[in-house]
Amino acid sequence: MDISQFSQINPPQRLLMGPGPINADPRVLRAMSSQLLGQYDPAMTHYMNEVMALYRGVFRTENRWTILIDGTSRAGIEAILLSAIRPGDKVLVPVFGRFGHLLCEIARRCRAEVHTIEVPWGEVFTPDQIEDAIKKVQPRLLLTVQGDTSTTMLQPLEQLGAICQKYGVLFYTDATASLGGNVLETDAWGLDAVSAGMQKCLGGPSGTSPITLSPQMEAVIRKRKCVEEGIRTADHQDGDEEMIYSNYFDLGMIMDYWGPERLNHHTEATTALFGARECARLMMQEGLDKGIARHKLHGEAMLKGIQGMGLETFGDLKHKMNNVLGVVIPQGVNGDQVRKLVLEDFGIEIGTSFGPLHGKVWRIGTMGYNARKDCVMQTLSALEAVLNHVGYRSTQGAAMQAAWDHYGSHA
Amino acid sequence: MDISQFSQINPPQRLLMGPGPINADPRVLRAMSSQLLGQYDPAMTHYMNEVMALYRGVFRTENRWTILIDGTSRAGIEAILLSAIRPGDKVLVPVFGRFGHLLCEIARRCRAEVHTIEVPWGEVFTPDQIEDAIKKVQPRLLLTVQGDTSTTMLQPLEQLGAICQKYGVLFYTDATASLGGNVLETDAWGLDAVSAGMQKCLGGPSGTSPITLSPQMEAVIRKRKCVEEGIRTADHQDGDEEMIYSNYFDLGMIMDYWGPERLNHHTEATTALFGARECARLMMQEGLDKGIARHKLHGEAMLKGIQGMGLETFGDLKHKMNNVLGVVIPQGVNGDQVRKLVLEDFGIEIGTSFGPLHGKVWRIGTMGYNARKDCVMQTLSALEAVLNHVGYRSTQGAAMQAAWDHYGSHA
Repeated sequence: MDISQFSQINPPQRLLMGPGPINADPRVLRAMSSQLLGQYDPAMTHYMNEVMALYRGVFRTENRWTILIDGTSRAGIEAILLSAIRPGDKVLVPVFGRFGHLLCEIARRCRAEVHTIEVPWGEVFTPDQIEDAIKKVQPRLLLTVQGDTSTTMLQPLEQLGAICQKYGVLFYTDATASLGGNVLETDAWGLDAVSAGMQKCLGGPSGTSPITLSPQMEAVIRKRKCVEEGIRTADHQDGDEEMIYSNYFDLGMIMDYWGPERLNHHTEATTALFGARECARLMMQEGLDKGIARHKLHGEAMLKGIQGMGLETFGDLKHKMNNVLGVVIPQGVNGDQVRKLVLEDFGIEIGTSFGPLHGKVWRIGTMGYNARKDCVMQTLSALEAVLNHVGYRSTQGAAMQAAWDHYGSHA
Repeated sequence: MDISQFSQINPPQRLLMGPGPINADPRVLRAMSSQLLGQYDPAMTHYMNEVMALYRGVFRTENRWTILIDGTSRAGIEAILLSAIRPGDKVLVPVFGRFGHLLCEIARRCRAEVHTIEVPWGEVFTPDQIEDAIKKVQPRLLLTVQGDTSTTMLQPLEQLGAICQKYGVLFYTDATASLGGNVLETDAWGLDAVSAGMQKCLGGPSGTSPITLSPQMEAVIRKRKCVEEGIRTADHQDGDEEMIYSNYFDLGMIMDYWGPERLNHHTEATTALFGARECARLMMQEGLDKGIARHKLHGEAMLKGIQGMGLETFGDLKHKMNNVLGVVIPQGVNGDQVRKLVLEDFGIEIGTSFGPLHGKVWRIGTMGYNARKDCVMQTLSALEAVLNHVGYRSTQGAAMQAAWDHYGSHA
């Protein structure tokens, strides 16, 4: 191996305006460059406790078990599903995009009996549709996605908690892409479990997943408790239900690691934890409501700009996430060529789409550190220039003027 | 929440001389403070390909599938075990410490039929003992730990590949704590899968796990291929064996994400990848053999120093890992009090022990960035001072002189 071919990390400057990951807040990267601590150092366990407190704020919950799962967003999803679903359990998944399919897929791997309801991509469910399905299926768990970036839609959740309670159903949502940029009220909405990710509205790098568990969900998980052979003592008792089919994602063990017993499990990813702490600290410093309003402001400015360029948007705008917008690729325009020019010549990334929307829709994000006016204006102006270059005509400057007008009327 | 109570990350300065995590190389932390890239940015996929090439060097392999699993070391272990073990498969685990128990635990959760052989903590197995057990059990997989920090022992592996080949057994080792500080020859020793971690000899923070898979192991995993609903096309075919009971750890999917198809799975933890790349780059720049020799030099200097202080060591020194040493806590000395004073008053962390060794043995590491003379000398001098303070008598300066003598005779 000629090692001289491998230079220092020196990524090109990019403005990441896709559906995530987005640019990390530089303050988060600085926090992550701090030197490490031992996992049982009092300074480290103090930081772990602070992370729990901060994410209680972010999730709007009093849940004791508000912790990090070391892995990307789907590690948080899988930890909750594997720990909560017993083989044979019935689950209901309202699917309105790719990440609903992912919940089904993970649930099937947990050997659940998976039931789905579907709406076309670009729509969401009414509470009645979900209640009807719950009556019919009688699931043990309702698995929802709050914001599905594949369609840019935000599923309203506020009425589902009461429905779940009425029928004795555990209520989970995947808030990976929505948390921090859209209202989420864990306790007020009766959620039993929520998972999230860093690389969207939280403004950090992918790599750790904040989750929160209600006391009821904790009780469900504790019934499947296990303690590892190499560290178990005579005082440890296992639960009476079948063990969880993963050690890494066994939330019983992970709670014992974050709890006062500090029972060794994995070695906490300290750098990722430092980053997650800073993301939450900055979010609480700004104020959660103010941060959500900021996402709404810049998301709407982007929408106005795109409309001002004469482009069509995708999906039901009444249920759009604040932080991502689907833009229909105009007839005769090569979507990938446009993305390539925007990336290579302007250093700006916008997103492609999956599945049925592939080749038909771009996805443009305004989230986390990039929910800013300068990011919106730069993206609109680069997109106008590239579209003009490839032959799509629009009124010069109309996109930026529409965004300016929006900012002017919302100052 | 009173957010003013949460200040910037500002960890106390610590010299981490336990069994890991240890201090990260500052160059690794700097690499990790780089701004992010989109996951399909050509610059990002180029870095992913470089990571594969660099870790082929570190693992001493030509294996194409040499990649990162986003999670801590045990994420790498679990990804391999979950993907390779089919429910009902027989596995053999030679247990010589806590991490052998962990392999059994994970294998049981994969619904394997788990068979073990055991030696007392502080010893390792002969190839004959393992061959006899293979003949008796006829397992599909042999699951080994190379270096078990719980006992500080290094299991010799070089003869096991031929034995596994003779009996048609897949051969895995957990090299979390040994890779980079002790010889590991993936190809020459006939290993089918190896997993590792960042926070030991590699000198980075916990949070991503490098793994390598032989072509034979790839074939085994491909039989269980799945493609997610939300991104599958008519061209995708599933394998003919039962699917893997995890989405996050489905190595078939993870290979398709790292391979030319770049099929979306998780969002790669870019910051962790930047760190892992820098760890491997620094290691290859130093030269793998030179790095291992450095671990041996400083590990032995620590051993001589500890012996010079009149302290007993734990386990069979012929089979000690280069990078960690078990030190028997002397009669009448409170091991936790000593660790506390060394930490609080000298800023140096040494390790406690698990299970049968708890309260009886300290574990002192010399690894990664901390396999250095100054780290060895500071640790010995702090330990001598604290032991003297709590009433354990030794000859003043003898520990440091023994280390100096060792360095002098190995210059």
